[in-house]
Amino acid sequence: MEKGAARGREEEEQGIVFGKNAVAETLKSASRADTLYLSTEADERSLAYLAALAKERGAVVKKLHPLKLQKLCGSERHQGVALQCALCEYCEVEDMLELAAERGEEPFLLLLDGLEDPHNLGAVIRTAECAGAHGVIIPKRGGCSITPAVVRSAAGAATHMKIARVSNLASQIRELKKLGIFFYCAEADGESCFEADLTGPAALVVGSEGQGVSRLSRELCDRTIALPLKGRIGSLNASVAAGVLMYEIVRQRALKA
Amino acid sequence: MEKGAARGREEEEQGIVFGKNAVAETLKSASRADTLYLSTEADERSLAYLAALAKERGAVVKKLHPLKLQKLCGSERHQGVALQCALCEYCEVEDMLELAAERGEEPFLLLLDGLEDPHNLGAVIRTAECAGAHGVIIPKRGGCSITPAVVRSAAGAATHMKIARVSNLASQIRELKKLGIFFYCAEADGESCFEADLTGPAALVVGSEGQGVSRLSRELCDRTIALPLKGRIGSLNASVAAGVLMYEIVRQRALKA
Repeated sequence: MEKGAARGREEEEQGIVFGKNAVAETLKSASRADTLYLSTEADERSLAYLAALAKERGAVVKKLHPLKLQKLCGSERHQGVALQCALCEYCEVEDMLELAAERGEEPFLLLLDGLEDPHNLGAVIRTAECAGAHGVIIPKRGGCSITPAVVRSAAGAATHMKIARVSNLASQIRELKKLGIFFYCAEADGESCFEADLTGPAALVVGSEGQGVSRLSRELCDRTIALPLKGRIGSLNASVAAGVLMYEIVRQRALKA
Repeated sequence: MEKGAARGREEEEQGIVFGKNAVAETLKSASRADTLYLSTEADERSLAYLAALAKERGAVVKKLHPLKLQKLCGSERHQGVALQCALCEYCEVEDMLELAAERGEEPFLLLLDGLEDPHNLGAVIRTAECAGAHGVIIPKRGGCSITPAVVRSAAGAATHMKIARVSNLASQIRELKKLGIFFYCAEADGESCFEADLTGPAALVVGSEGQGVSRLSRELCDRTIALPLKGRIGSLNASVAAGVLMYEIVRQRALKA
């Protein structure tokens, strides 16, 4: 879809996932697992199921001194276990459209225009997965990429959700608009999302925490929507706002069906 | 409302707020400001408006070596300025009901049953303020209290929102039910919030990130509601889920009005 991006060339983000739950969730997902590191000081029995799961997935199991494990994780909160793995395998935007077609649904995409906080990015990916969106598009430059902190915050959703990185958000928006996808820009001065018609093939554009959606992306959008603000604070947390808007799309789609 | 809690005795949470925006927001709010600390290395002109604002609010202004400022804040991200202040003045649950009456609205309360993550608590307080809720009730023990991290994440909402701490959530729920407030428990196995009637005097109960709503609180609730989950992940981030549910209450109230 994006010029110069050869179809089928999958890129991936590699990194270290640590902590029993996060490692277990990753081992159960489709992501590639390379090496499982167990602390030499940990209770072997309590980690045996992870070692078995890792071997089943073709990963190598190694023992590591707890201080080395801590250095590898950049954190003390490893609970004696870390996994070197593919954090996320990027897909193409076409794959998201194919998924929508397979499910017999109208496309429902998220486009993140410079979201910077890893907790917010993780929470948005998690919500997108729960809301049944077909994909999350992030820019190659500007904004947070898929880091271990994002993967933890996404609570397993990063491996289930289709995520694409594009080098030019604006040309991506133009391409998708040609296919009939309607772009909704999330900005505080937009019309109430409860009064706008959000049914039909849709992409929701969410901007950065500080700056919001970039001027260019905003100009390309078909409509600007917002949550009604009833207090004195001028904006919501980006992942909460994105969540409410995504679920308003879910609600309106269900009503129409 | 709570047994043994003398009416009118206001408690407050004190702490250090740092960074230009957070300090400015706090100085503009109604919270008590005690001492403004400016780094001896900072550009005085860029902080002069904060010093003026602080003096206007009756705060003392002191200069501090940047290393001491860093120690005070427990962070390097102070931008040369920190404020010793009241983070939040707790109120009573009655004050929330009075606010609802003043506004001519049916009560709309949040009850947080053990939310642990300061980012989530801050985001929930921020969303509650934006959604026009009348108050947020937190337990005295169990769960996160109002810390500087919560105040930062709430982006100014902690000083605008009515927040009460109660020592017994269950008896608080029973008292409020006697007044005709309907309790909605947010749990993944509940009925779809889009199919439930959320109009009328309402309190939304949100549980901890790991354990959800406690058994006792849940049993006292009138109804359990949830967001429809369309993917493979079993739950949303607590502050996102709370946000979608609060705004569904806002939407249904506006329709009914």
